[in-house]
Amino acid sequence: MRIFSVVGRKNSGKTTLIERMIPFFKAKGLRVAVVKHDAHDFSIDHEGKDTWRVRKAGADEVIIASGSQMAHMRSLPAPMEVGELLSHLASVDVVILEGYKRLNFPKLVVLRDASELFDMRLDGDPSVTAYVLRRAPNAAPPDSAVPRFWADEVERIAEFSWKKAREMTDEDIPVKQQTIYPASSIHHRASSIEHPASAVGHRA
Amino acid sequence: MRIFSVVGRKNSGKTTLIERMIPFFKAKGLRVAVVKHDAHDFSIDHEGKDTWRVRKAGADEVIIASGSQMAHMRSLPAPMEVGELLSHLASVDVVILEGYKRLNFPKLVVLRDASELFDMRLDGDPSVTAYVLRRAPNAAPPDSAVPRFWADEVERIAEFSWKKAREMTDEDIPVKQQTIYPASSIHHRASSIEHPASAVGHRA
Repeated sequence: MRIFSVVGRKNSGKTTLIERMIPFFKAKGLRVAVVKHDAHDFSIDHEGKDTWRVRKAGADEVIIASGSQMAHMRSLPAPMEVGELLSHLASVDVVILEGYKRLNFPKLVVLRDASELFDMRLDGDPSVTAYVLRRAPNAAPPDSAVPRFWADEVERIAEFSWKKAREMTDEDIPVKQQTIYPASSIHHRASSIEHPASAVGHRA
Repeated sequence: MRIFSVVGRKNSGKTTLIERMIPFFKAKGLRVAVVKHDAHDFSIDHEGKDTWRVRKAGADEVIIASGSQMAHMRSLPAPMEVGELLSHLASVDVVILEGYKRLNFPKLVVLRDASELFDMRLDGDPSVTAYVLRRAPNAAPPDSAVPRFWADEVERIAEFSWKKAREMTDEDIPVKQQTIYPASSIHHRASSIEHPASAVGHRA
């Protein structure tokens, strides 16, 4: 299981980027998970459906399963550590985190303009792996040695992220996260898949 | 974790019964889960939401988490055994299964009329614990020694189900289910909660 994250302000284009990268990973034969942090209280499920009704009636956990999919909804007494969230995933090869900007995984920062980097207090953060900027006539990339991409360079961004995620060793994962999420479970199932070095790069 | 199931034909009132029993268990201080089998392919989540978009883009698993709840949606290569579904539940005291009529857990059968029992091939099934019938002028209860309740006797039904679920010993669980769902994980956290015997009963 290899992990990287996509962070950015609200409406910066995080979901669009993730959405467009997924087919790239799927085409490599990888199983993909997305783990999204929601700062507010999300609503899921359709009002009036059975699952919605029993949740509303007070069920702490609800699972619905068919032959081809399952969904599990639960109330939490306290916020869950990302390591515990990850432990729920079955056999996925790549995990794209959305919105966990304080965790030490390789990080794409989606920016509408350079000032947002400072607003998010991510300037100088060593886990920032690349900036992703919207292509615009007056786009001003941050003045930094960090690689940068235009948001429409989806394949290059995905290839680069996957390379960075695979470079991360167990030692790079903070102790607290290692405890929750044992290093041994970060396996190498997908390591035999071809990744042409020539396709990996960043803007000079 | 104590388990019982509610089975019945489509639109027989299973969800309504479950929905009405939940507050009874919650009032006892129990943590409640509902696990629903869906014969068709359910849809969950709202079209256009971020989680919906990344699922549609091909993500095999999607988790969304806030400080107070989480939802986990995943595609399954093959139907999941109920034991594995149950292993996803955290610390719940009572699990209400909806629609797993072939499993050997105490079973409430919700009937619109007695003939449905034969349609479902549940006549003579020893795991059938009680019949639940809609109160109607011409309601014909099945001719059997199995206890029966009217659907509006929610508290009596819940009390009875809880008693039956607690009576089930590890030996009652079929070997296959024991393997998937170790007996040791069927714990007794809630056993100290008061259950007045006088409130438990069934129609004479």
